[in-house]
Order: sequence, then C-alpha cells, then structure tokens
Amino acid sequence: MSSTEVKLSRLLILAQKFNNFYLSGIHKCDIRPFVVEGKQVGLIKSDVLKHLEKYPEVFCIRACEQTKQGLVELNPAFRDYNERTEQLEKVLRNLRSEGLFPALQGWRDEYFEVKADCRALLKMERAATPLFGVRKYGVDINGYVRHPTLGLCIWLQQRSNTKETWPGKWDNMVGGGLSVGFGIKETAIKEAAEEASIPSDLVKNLVSAGCVSFYFESRQGLFPNTEYVFDLELPLDFVPQNADGEVQAFELLTAKDCVERVFTSDFKTTSAPVVIDFLIRHGHITADDVVDFTQIVELLHVPLQSIYTYKTRFEQSIKQPQFLPGDSKNCNCAIFQKISMENGHKKAN
Amino acid sequence: MSSTEVKLSRLLILAQKFNNFYLSGIHKCDIRPFVVEGKQVGLIKSDVLKHLEKYPEVFCIRACEQTKQGLVELNPAFRDYNERTEQLEKVLRNLRSEGLFPALQGWRDEYFEVKADCRALLKMERAATPLFGVRKYGVDINGYVRHPTLGLCIWLQQRSNTKETWPGKWDNMVGGGLSVGFGIKETAIKEAAEEASIPSDLVKNLVSAGCVSFYFESRQGLFPNTEYVFDLELPLDFVPQNADGEVQAFELLTAKDCVERVFTSDFKTTSAPVVIDFLIRHGHITADDVVDFTQIVELLHVPLQSIYTYKTRFEQSIKQPQFLPGDSKNCNCAIFQKISMENGHKKAN
Repeated sequence: MSSTEVKLSRLLILAQKFNNFYLSGIHKCDIRPFVVEGKQVGLIKSDVLKHLEKYPEVFCIRACEQTKQGLVELNPAFRDYNERTEQLEKVLRNLRSEGLFPALQGWRDEYFEVKADCRALLKMERAATPLFGVRKYGVDINGYVRHPTLGLCIWLQQRSNTKETWPGKWDNMVGGGLSVGFGIKETAIKEAAEEASIPSDLVKNLVSAGCVSFYFESRQGLFPNTEYVFDLELPLDFVPQNADGEVQAFELLTAKDCVERVFTSDFKTTSAPVVIDFLIRHGHITADDVVDFTQIVELLHVPLQSIYTYKTRFEQSIKQPQFLPGDSKNCNCAIFQKISMENGHKKAN
Repeated sequence: MSSTEVKLSRLLILAQKFNNFYLSGIHKCDIRPFVVEGKQVGLIKSDVLKHLEKYPEVFCIRACEQTKQGLVELNPAFRDYNERTEQLEKVLRNLRSEGLFPALQGWRDEYFEVKADCRALLKMERAATPLFGVRKYGVDINGYVRHPTLGLCIWLQQRSNTKETWPGKWDNMVGGGLSVGFGIKETAIKEAAEEASIPSDLVKNLVSAGCVSFYFESRQGLFPNTEYVFDLELPLDFVPQNADGEVQAFELLTAKDCVERVFTSDFKTTSAPVVIDFLIRHGHITADDVVDFTQIVELLHVPLQSIYTYKTRFEQSIKQPQFLPGDSKNCNCAIFQKISMENGHKKAN
C-alpha cells in the first residue's frame, strides 16, 4: 500500500468520523423531525423522545396525516416566541434536574435562537440543542502564514481545559457560534479579537471562503453543523494572544504537521472539516495524492438542507399525495416510512 | 425585495438549473443502475432502456434478487475489457444509425474509459456516455488577475462555433475531460497549453483547489459530473491564445461582470458551478450577501457518491436482507422501490 493510499484512507476515515450520523446513525435509529409552527427545526432520537413523552402538554408526538411520518411537534397552542421559549425551558430544567442527559450537565445559561426561514421561533439553552438535533451555525478563521522557507503554515489554538466542550483539544485559530443580532463576518471579527487579539488592521484582510457542513453524533447528541469559513493571512511576526480565557495556547504548524495533528485524538473532531477544507482549497491535499478525494469533498458539504425538509414534504404531500420528493432526496426517508408504519395508525387519529 | 434577495434567488435558481436531475429528474422517471461486473457504472432512463431491450444478448434487464431493484446489466458472459467494449459498441453504432438519440449525432470516435474502483471495465464512445449516465470527470482552470484598480478579474473563453457541445457559449478559461493515462494536474497542464497557450513558467503556479459535483440533465442525456478545479493567477500583461481551434475568443471580466455573464444564456450551464465555487472561495459571493448561501454551496457538491451505490447495496442486502442503507442515503431509492414493485415479480424469476 503506497503512502498516498495510507493518507487517503486516514482522511476518508476522518471524514466518515465527523459524519458518523450522516453515514450511519441516521439509518440505525428511530428519529423524527422536531416541528415548530409547521417548520422542521430539528431531529429527535428515540432516547430523547421517550423522555419527552412525559410532557404531552408541551410536545405533541404523532404521525402527520399528510406525510404519514412520525414527528414531534411543539404544542401549536403556544401563542408566541416567549410562551414557546418558557414552556420548552420548563421541560429542559426538569430533564436537567433528573440528570438524564450528559448534554444538559453542560448547561451554560446561554441561549441559542431557533429559526426557520429567517424567522426566530423560540430560544433554547445552547447545551440542549444537540438533544433536539437543531442545526447549528458557526464561524471559523483559518489563520495562516506564507513562510519563506517552511511554506504554508497554519495557526492552531488549544482550547482551555475549563471549556465545557472539547476541553484541552486542538482547534482552528479562531471559531465561535453565531450570536443573535450579529452578522456572519461581524461574528468572525468579534471572535478574532476575543480569542486571538487580532487587531483591526489585520482582520480587514479576512476573506470569506465558503462553508463546510457535516452531521456528527456524540454522547451529547446530534450536531448538524454548518461552519462559515474565513481565511486570514497573517504577517510572519504576528503571534495570537487569547483575551477571553478560552484558549490556553496557540501553535504555528507547517501544512504537513497540521494534517498530522488533525488525525490525532488531541484534535477537536468537529473542527477537522474546516482544516481539511482549507488544505484542499490551498492545494495541500490534491486529487492526485488522494484516491478518495471527491468522496472526501462530498463529506465536507453534506446536504443537511435535504434532511430538514418536513415543511417541503408536507406541502408536496398536499399537492401530490402519491409522491414525496423528500422521500428520495431525504437522507432518512426510509426511517420516516418505518415510523409511519409503526405509529401512523396508532397515533394518526 | 432587496438586491441581495434578487442576487440570492438568481444564484439558487442557477444552482438548481445545473442540478435539475439531482433535484427533480431523478424522482420523476424510471431509472436503473447500469451494472458491469457487479459494479454500478451508470444510470439508465426509461427512454433509453426501451431501445436496449432490443439487445437481450448484450443487456440483461432484470430485478436484482438480492436488492429487489430493477437494473440493467451488461451481459456478464462477456469475457473481458475488449469483448465488453466491442459488444457495447455494436449496439451504439446501431442506435446511431437509427438516429434515435441526439447525443449519438455528436459521435466523435473518441473513447471514454469506464472504470469502477480504479479498474477499467470497458471503453465507450464519449458521445454515448450521457445515455448511460456514466460519471464524468474533468478539469477546469480559473485564470485570474489581481488588477490594481479593478480588483479580482477572471479570464473566460468563448467556445468555438464548431464545437460538438455548447458551441459559441462562454466557458471557464481552460477546461477538458480526463483522458486515459493522464493524471489530473497533468491533464490541466496539457489543456492549459492547448486551449490558452499558457507557458510552463506560468502554469507552474497552478493551485489545486478542490472539486465541484453536480447532476445535470439535457436532451443529450445525463451528466453526473465532477470537475477538479485549479486556480491560476496570471500577470496583468498575459493574454491567453488558443492553439487547438476549440476557442474563438478570450475575455477578461471583473468579478462583478463575471457573475452577470454566468447568469446569461450565453454561458455554458455545466461550467457555472466552477465559476460560482471560485467566486465563493475568493470572497466575492458571501454568506452575508446571499441568504441561500449554504444551500448553494451544498448544490456545488452534491453526493454523487451516494447515487452510484448498487454494489454497496447488493453487499449490504446480503449482510442484512431487512435493511438497505442505500435506500435512505440513495437519492433514487424511492424509484428503485417502485421498480422492484413493478418488475420484481415479473422479471425476478
């Protein structure tokens, strides 16, 4: 086996690792769309579902009569953003006190706004979003240097040991979740200042470079993540300094060492897609070196869009009851069909 | 509607246009995997299928007893590469003489090697590949200039009016299909010389930048295409010159004018993904400008891998007859299920 083949299999295995739910989990378990105001905002697994069944006044667990799919609907009687938020939070605080979910032990009194079609439907404790498979969006900055002798070098950060998630793991130079009321580039600039003290005269060189999407599952729950990626070329003499206590170290690595670092268990699995995408876009991982190149690129951009399509499926089923395009495009159509067979009659009426 | 929203919808509509088969065609028609030596190398639509039925000695049209899916298999009795090639070519020459398919009117006596798992199974007249939905791979070079006053500018080529496909349309500076025995970067360098007379001292700056994948359908047939993309920064004073008669003009456009050109009917639809990907990677189309940004990026990297999975599905069905993961990942699972219902009993025994 040539070194190239070794490299390929390691990269593909890694791409499969941060897509473990997209490639396998999604087919193994009974999952249902989480629907708020008729729009799918998440996916719920059976291990979570069985605890939500205790709150029939909050969650309506049924089969949709139109699509014949099992779904979990937030009580449509809730009047507005505030009532939806309060009712859901009551349940989350109960579940937290019962100590059932590792995810809720990371409760941080920090809200994540759950939206559909750019409309805010409710806000949810950030730590709870993996239980509901809510799509998360973040920004990442690839900080790099063109070194005269070492070539392309990449700045990585080591997360603080006190961080709630992935403590002590290596990560992209700068990253963070989108916050309510902030634009995407605006968030990147804010995080660049907080996490790495990047001054405004350097951050003005920030280049938007696309996004990566993947679907990861861990003990905490589901991570259907999309990361907006930015590249930032830095001068040779610049050294990032953390300003918010969330980073314990920064290190400048050559492209080659960076690839090796990403393969180690010391690297945050869900940050690997950003680094791999960067190394592909900058010609350090090429199709001539890696036989599975196209498959890896596909796994950096999985069609999350096609997994969160309950509303489309519902509308389609009204137009053409015989045919649900979602069934064939949607990654978990088989499961939906299974659910409707199991629960359709039981719950439909 | 803000100008941003207009921009977004135009970009999304374009991304849907070059994915018309992925998003819609694939769900509308009876399509079957084309299987050679147990491996899926293509997809065949019913309009082609009905003519292949006249050649039962060459094509075995049946439902797979394992997967219960309809499929078209090249007669497994054919001994080797040469026999498979000759037998298939006989049929293609007949179909061409009957003048049934517009695609075959573009016959060019140029072979395309049909492979699976890096093994060559047969060669097929290039013009015929869309009838069999064979995955095609090509290279594209984004030639660009950093203009002191105009900013990022992009070189486009206008295809010769005598070209078999897309005559007279605007296209990327350099592009071409992968040829037997040539590496990917090697092909890009060869095409750069033939199409734009790029000298070796400039082509050495070629940067591999990933790939785009999409699934387009036209009167010619199916185009499940993957394009390996390269970026090449060119000096201000360099002007591409065609050397092989396949290009009638080159033009340097600003990023803004390039976006507008891509939207016109004068631009080759299947080359649009490469330009859009380039403009996204270089920060000229950003998530803050385009609400559908993530959806557009997904449509530049559709999971073709998951559509050509007959072999995996077959192996899975032996392991777990109750469950075919392909059904839920595979874009046309619903159709496969339909086929097996229609033809399973009729043809299975």
